[in-house]
Amino acid sequence: MDALVCTDCGRECALTEPIWRCECGGTLDISFTATFDRQQIDRYGSTMWRYRGAIPIAGDNIVSLYEGCTPMGTLSVHGQPIWLKFDHVLPTGSFKDRGASVLVSKVKELGIRHIVEDSSGNAGAAIAAYSAAAGIRCDVYAPKQVSAAKLAQIRAYGANVHLCVNRELAGAQAQWDARGAYYGGHAWNPFFIHGVKTCAFEIVEWLGGAVPDSVVVPVGNGTLLLGMYIGFCDLVKARVTRRMPKLIGVQASQCAPLQRAFRLGRERPSHVFGKPTVADGIAIDRPVRGRQILKAVRETHGRFVAVTELEIMKAFDRLCLTGLYVEPTGAVGLAGAAKYVRKEHPDEVIVTVLTGHGLKAPEAVRAWLDEEA
Amino acid sequence: MDALVCTDCGRECALTEPIWRCECGGTLDISFTATFDRQQIDRYGSTMWRYRGAIPIAGDNIVSLYEGCTPMGTLSVHGQPIWLKFDHVLPTGSFKDRGASVLVSKVKELGIRHIVEDSSGNAGAAIAAYSAAAGIRCDVYAPKQVSAAKLAQIRAYGANVHLCVNRELAGAQAQWDARGAYYGGHAWNPFFIHGVKTCAFEIVEWLGGAVPDSVVVPVGNGTLLLGMYIGFCDLVKARVTRRMPKLIGVQASQCAPLQRAFRLGRERPSHVFGKPTVADGIAIDRPVRGRQILKAVRETHGRFVAVTELEIMKAFDRLCLTGLYVEPTGAVGLAGAAKYVRKEHPDEVIVTVLTGHGLKAPEAVRAWLDEEA
Repeated sequence: MDALVCTDCGRECALTEPIWRCECGGTLDISFTATFDRQQIDRYGSTMWRYRGAIPIAGDNIVSLYEGCTPMGTLSVHGQPIWLKFDHVLPTGSFKDRGASVLVSKVKELGIRHIVEDSSGNAGAAIAAYSAAAGIRCDVYAPKQVSAAKLAQIRAYGANVHLCVNRELAGAQAQWDARGAYYGGHAWNPFFIHGVKTCAFEIVEWLGGAVPDSVVVPVGNGTLLLGMYIGFCDLVKARVTRRMPKLIGVQASQCAPLQRAFRLGRERPSHVFGKPTVADGIAIDRPVRGRQILKAVRETHGRFVAVTELEIMKAFDRLCLTGLYVEPTGAVGLAGAAKYVRKEHPDEVIVTVLTGHGLKAPEAVRAWLDEEA
Repeated sequence: MDALVCTDCGRECALTEPIWRCECGGTLDISFTATFDRQQIDRYGSTMWRYRGAIPIAGDNIVSLYEGCTPMGTLSVHGQPIWLKFDHVLPTGSFKDRGASVLVSKVKELGIRHIVEDSSGNAGAAIAAYSAAAGIRCDVYAPKQVSAAKLAQIRAYGANVHLCVNRELAGAQAQWDARGAYYGGHAWNPFFIHGVKTCAFEIVEWLGGAVPDSVVVPVGNGTLLLGMYIGFCDLVKARVTRRMPKLIGVQASQCAPLQRAFRLGRERPSHVFGKPTVADGIAIDRPVRGRQILKAVRETHGRFVAVTELEIMKAFDRLCLTGLYVEPTGAVGLAGAAKYVRKEHPDEVIVTVLTGHGLKAPEAVRAWLDEEA
């Protein structure tokens, strides 16, 4: 039976419970049988909702802004082609639209009228946009360092923005203030991740049914990596594909609790005090799903890669010079893929994701261009 | 025979001539027979290049970043549904990508290695992006008031930016400095407009083959309006459709040389000294194709509408609250459509275009939100 399942204690709850974590404090996952009906998929057109048989939302509650079905292209790195998934051109300018569309659809299904969420910026903008589209009140808690472009965007959608001292306190404050509303913190919310997973389906469809050997993604709270894990698992379980790709998580060297834990062979993220990084979208000291992320990476025989600030911005430059404009965090995947290819020289089909648009971070871009000049 | 044709004196030139205006000083159009082969269109997938039989570019020179095939949605205004074309989610965040893709493809076809262009920002970003993708050097002349987000974006693509005192001098300076290079000023360049026209094809395809009664678009230099005119003409000439829509041009009241000329029954744009407007993308005192634009609007039994700053920002608010984030210029079309519907109460199928992403103008958005608060 479809249910919310605790990733720690295994306790099950109905999918209709408006909870965001287990009584034991554990994060929730969704037990749900995804189906892929070719005819249905083709009939539904060019949004991620073409895979609605694989998304745990009932009937008419879909809140959509035409997200998904983003194109892919290749870039040659150290002589090897790397596939890029263009998720930076989703409606609000980041891959978070996938998660927000499903999360807000679920909230609509539950009949709840108020979402509270915390974010470094992109998830806040995405959830604010979909909340506006659904006519649902939205409060976003963000660190006061949030980029001015993201802040203006979140406010424009009509969300109430609460600026907090840092990213971690934004989460704590949001959880506290969410009593009486629905806490939609995307790191915790399993429906969000079950939206993000559609990225995996689209990759396989773009590659003509093939599973890449490695999927390389930036990891902060890890919603993209876990989305990939669940998405590729869904495809294997439904016998659409036969194997999992290696999942390669990329973190900024400035803030790499998972890369460190992986290297040390630990099950849980290391305690780090992250230093500031240009990749502000993945500057997460304590990823709440850290254990789950490490498990997924190990299970798929993947690994973690840490990239320096310079490596990130060199990848940014590389993308710009092919006409692809991403925010620094959006270049982290390519930076990691380049390092992975150079170190391991694998003769593999490698996919990475461009996660956020360059227009999200004009200040950071200008600072970098001025430094280069 | 396919040719460049002067819109003033009728003189013809080969399509391979790297000129941007006629010897007589007139603007150029392209005489070219567009074809629409259903099977070919479907085979080419989801970019505007699916209509390549209707685009005057030869064979293998296409420079594409997966632009076009943007979705459409409706919004109810004064009880009437208005169709919105989501061109703000094109790769660089504005409809200018359509024009830039064709313009840069043409430059590649001609074997030219250097483009010079002037722009209030969006066309500059688009041409810079496609130039980067094609490995062509690009110089962009922009007014010094250009939004910081657009400026960072243009620079990121590797273009050399020249800031000028105002929009008009940017044009003059670019034309002067373009000797030895290719002047790609989008107001003059006919290939640019023959890229923009694909928007008309996509509208008809989205509407299942139907032609809207009215198409309402922001007009500065008028490349979008002329693109629509040429695109709908192509469809009629090829007998894909049977009639033209009315073309409704919208200008900001602060800078409305064409709306004024239309009202006064004149053939050429009125002389105005435009005042500053939130719609900086259409703040053009002297549209070089003014006569052509007025003719197209009259020929289709359309009209001009002028909208105030407040009307523009109210349309912006309306869009945001349905989850659609555009820059102020991108809301001008809806503001005009709302005024058109209210004044004339037409029972018509009306389409307008969201021309640029909200992330293009965070400063203007913040200023407006602060004013409202």
